[in-house]
Amino acid sequence: MEATGKKAVELAKIVEAVARERGITIAVAPQFTDLKTVSEATGVPVFSQHIDPIRPGASTGHILPEAVKASGAVGTILNHSERRIKISEIEESVEMAKTSDLIALVCANTAGVSAAVAALDPHMIAVEPPELIGTGVAVSKAKPELITYTVKRIHTVNPHVRILCGAGVSTPEDVAKAIQLGTEGVLLASSVVKSKDPRKLLSEMADAALEATH
Amino acid sequence: MEATGKKAVELAKIVEAVARERGITIAVAPQFTDLKTVSEATGVPVFSQHIDPIRPGASTGHILPEAVKASGAVGTILNHSERRIKISEIEESVEMAKTSDLIALVCANTAGVSAAVAALDPHMIAVEPPELIGTGVAVSKAKPELITYTVKRIHTVNPHVRILCGAGVSTPEDVAKAIQLGTEGVLLASSVVKSKDPRKLLSEMADAALEATH
Amino acid sequence: MEATGKKAVELAKIVEAVARERGITIAVAPQFTDLKTVSEATGVPVFSQHIDPIRPGASTGHILPEAVKASGAVGTILNHSERRIKISEIEESVEMAKTSDLIALVCANTAGVSAAVAALDPHMIAVEPPELIGTGVAVSKAKPELITYTVKRIHTVNPHVRILCGAGVSTPEDVAKAIQLGTEGVLLASSVVKSKDPRKLLSEMADAALEATH
Amino acid sequence: MEATGKKAVELAKIVEAVARERGITIAVAPQFTDLKTVSEATGVPVFSQHIDPIRPGASTGHILPEAVKASGAVGTILNHSERRIKISEIEESVEMAKTSDLIALVCANTAGVSAAVAALDPHMIAVEPPELIGTGVAVSKAKPELITYTVKRIHTVNPHVRILCGAGVSTPEDVAKAIQLGTEGVLLASSVVKSKDPRKLLSEMADAALEATH
Repeated sequence: MEATGKKAVELAKIVEAVARERGITIAVAPQFTDLKTVSEATGVPVFSQHIDPIRPGASTGHILPEAVKASGAVGTILNHSERRIKISEIEESVEMAKTSDLIALVCANTAGVSAAVAALDPHMIAVEPPELIGTGVAVSKAKPELITYTVKRIHTVNPHVRILCGAGVSTPEDVAKAIQLGTEGVLLASSVVKSKDPRKLLSEMADAALEATH
Repeated sequence: MEATGKKAVELAKIVEAVARERGITIAVAPQFTDLKTVSEATGVPVFSQHIDPIRPGASTGHILPEAVKASGAVGTILNHSERRIKISEIEESVEMAKTSDLIALVCANTAGVSAAVAALDPHMIAVEPPELIGTGVAVSKAKPELITYTVKRIHTVNPHVRILCGAGVSTPEDVAKAIQLGTEGVLLASSVVKSKDPRKLLSEMADAALEATH
Repeated sequence: MEATGKKAVELAKIVEAVARERGITIAVAPQFTDLKTVSEATGVPVFSQHIDPIRPGASTGHILPEAVKASGAVGTILNHSERRIKISEIEESVEMAKTSDLIALVCANTAGVSAAVAALDPHMIAVEPPELIGTGVAVSKAKPELITYTVKRIHTVNPHVRILCGAGVSTPEDVAKAIQLGTEGVLLASSVVKSKDPRKLLSEMADAALEATH
Repeated sequence: MEATGKKAVELAKIVEAVARERGITIAVAPQFTDLKTVSEATGVPVFSQHIDPIRPGASTGHILPEAVKASGAVGTILNHSERRIKISEIEESVEMAKTSDLIALVCANTAGVSAAVAALDPHMIAVEPPELIGTGVAVSKAKPELITYTVKRIHTVNPHVRILCGAGVSTPEDVAKAIQLGTEGVLLASSVVKSKDPRKLLSEMADAALEATH
C-alpha cells in the first residue's frame, strides 16, 4: 500500500529526481491500475508487472500488451517469482512485448532457468533466487559465485541480454557488489518502498552503482 | 482495441449519457490500465475484469483488490469465461471484494455452477453458457428454459443474489427476453463495443429492458 | 513412500482385514501407478486421488476417468487440498466420474465451498479446513461447530450428499467425534500411513466409529 | 482407448517384437495406471507421460517421480503439448527425474523453447510445433528447415541433448526424413495407436529409420 495510488506517483517523482541528479536510469513498476497516472505525471520509465500473451478479443481479466503500451509504459516484467508462467508463455510474451515496442525483462530463479530464458531473447533478465527474496540478504553477498556463474551462462547462450541482480538487494553495498559481479543493475522492491527515506536510500544506491561502474 | 485508452473513456461517456436519459444503471468493465481514467472522467460505475485474492506484499503481477478500489472502481467481475478460477479462489475473492467494499459479480457457465457460486454469496451472478458466448445467439433465445431453471436453482440456494444473463446478448430483443425470463440485467461485450453506433444500440436495449420490466 | 508400490498392497490388505472384521467400509486412495495392483490384489474399494475432465485423444499427461475405471477403481477424490481445481472442472469431473460409474468424492475447505460443491451433486464431500490439515489437531476437536454448521449448509443445498470429516483426524476419539457431529466417516492420511501399527490404529478407529454410530 | 488397459500391454508387446527384430529402441508411454502392468508384462522401456516436481508428503493427486520409478518406468515425458508446465517446474522435474534415475524427455514447441529447454540439461528434447500436431503433416515435410535450425540451436546451447522429431510423424517416409534432418528418432502417437496394423507400420518405420541412419 506504500506504492499504490497517489503514493505511486509520489514515489515515482522521487525516483525521477534521483535518476536525473545522478544521471542514471531508474524505472518503476507500479500496480496495473497506476500505470497510466504514473506515466503521465512523471518522465520516469514505467514497467508493467506482467503481461498476458493474449490478443484483444477474448481477453477479459487479462493484461493486454496493447493496453499496457497505451498506458504509457515502456516495458514489462515477466515470470516474476510471484507470478511464474509457462515456458511457451514466456516466449510468446517476449515476442508480443517486442511487437508492442515494450522492453521485456524476464525474471529467473536459477542459473539454469536464466540460461534457458536467454535463449528466448528478452531484452533483460533479472536473476532472483527464491531462497533470498525478501530476506534482506543479497544474493550478491550470500552467493556471489552464483551471480558470476549465472552471468557467464546467460552470455554463453545469448551475449546481448542485459542482466540485473534481483534478490534481497537492500543496501548501497548490495548494489555496488551486484555491479562488481558483472550485472548492469538491480531489481528493488520492499527495501525502497518501505524505506523511511526512499530518496536518501535511492541516492546512496545510485552513488554506489556509479562508483562500482568506474 | 475499440474499448482501450481514450476509446474506453469515450464509450463510458456514451454509457453514462444513456443511463442518465433512461434512468437505468449501466456499469463498464474496461482494461485494468483504464480503471482510474474512466472512473475519474465519468460518473459511470466501473468494474474491474478480475481481482486476485492476494494481499499487498508478495503480489507482483497480480490484481490487488485494494488497488482496484483505489482506482475508483465500485465492483469486480470474477470467474469470467475467459478467466476461470478455482472454487476456493472465488470464495476468497468474494470475501476480499466485500472487505474492500467492491461489488462481486461472479460468472458461471452452467445451472450447477451458478447454484454452487450462489452458496459463496456474491452480490451478483452472470450466467454465461460457453457454447453461446460470442456466437450472437442469445442464451435467452437458444435455451430460454436454461435461464428460468438457473434462476430457480440460484434462488433456492441463495435468494439474495441478483442475476444477469451473460451470453450472446446482442439485440434489444435479447435484453427484453432475458428480463422476461427472470434476470435483472445483462452482461454485454462485443455487440456494443463493436457496434457502429453504440449509443443507439444501448438506448434501444435500455428501452427494451424498461418495457420488459413493466 | 510408506504407501507406494508393494507397501500400497500391504496396507490395502490390512485395511481389507479390518473392514471385514468390523463390518465397515474402508476405501484406499493409492498412487495412480498402484491403482491396478491394489485393485487386483485386494477386495478393498480403491479411489483415484484425482481425475482430469478430459476425454481420450489429446490427453497426454492427464488422468483419464476411463483409465481410472479400467484400473479397477470404484471412485475418485477431486479438489483435494493439495490439488485444487477450477469450479467448472469440478462439475465436469463429477459428471465424467458418473459417466464412468465412479464415485465422486469432492474435498472442500470451508462451509461455503462445501455448500457450493453440494450444488454440483457429487456423491460425497470431505470437509477439510486447510488450517488443520496435517497438524494432528482434528477439525472436530478444534472447531466442532464448524462441522455441524457445514453439515447443515451442505444438506440445505443437497440432502443426498454424504459427508466425511477430512482434516487432522488422527485418533479413535477424533473419529468418534466426527461421527457424533453428523458426518458419516473420515478421510485419513498420514496418521494411518505413518503409524507403527496401522492395523491396531484402524481397528480402534473402526470400533470408535461403530460405537459413535449407535 | 486403443492404448489403455489390456490394449496397452498388447501394443507394448508388438513394440517389443519390432524393436527386437530390427535391433532398434522403441519406448512406450502408456497411461499412469498402466505403467506397472506394461513394465512387468514386457521388456520394452516404459516412459511416464508426466511427473510433478513434488516430494512424497503433501502430494495427493500428483504424479510422484518415486512412484513412477517404482512402477518400473525408465523415463518420463515432460512439457508435452497437452500438458505444458512452468519453466521452473521443467528444471525441477528434470532434476528430480535424474535423482530418481529416470530419463527426462522434454517436449518443446519452437526453436526458441527448444534452445531454452536445452539449457536445463534434459537427456532428450522432442520438437513438436503445435500447428502440426495431429494434422498428419510431418514437421519434417512441412518445415524441414525448422528441424535443422532447431537441431543447430539446441546443440549450440547443449551438445549433449538427444533430439527427437515430435509432430505429425505418421509414415515411414516421415521417419526417414526426420532422421536425415539430424534428429535421432521420432515421437509417435495416434498414427501408430490408431493404425489397423501397428506391427506392419512400426516395422516399416523401423526399416526407414535404419536406412536413413546409414
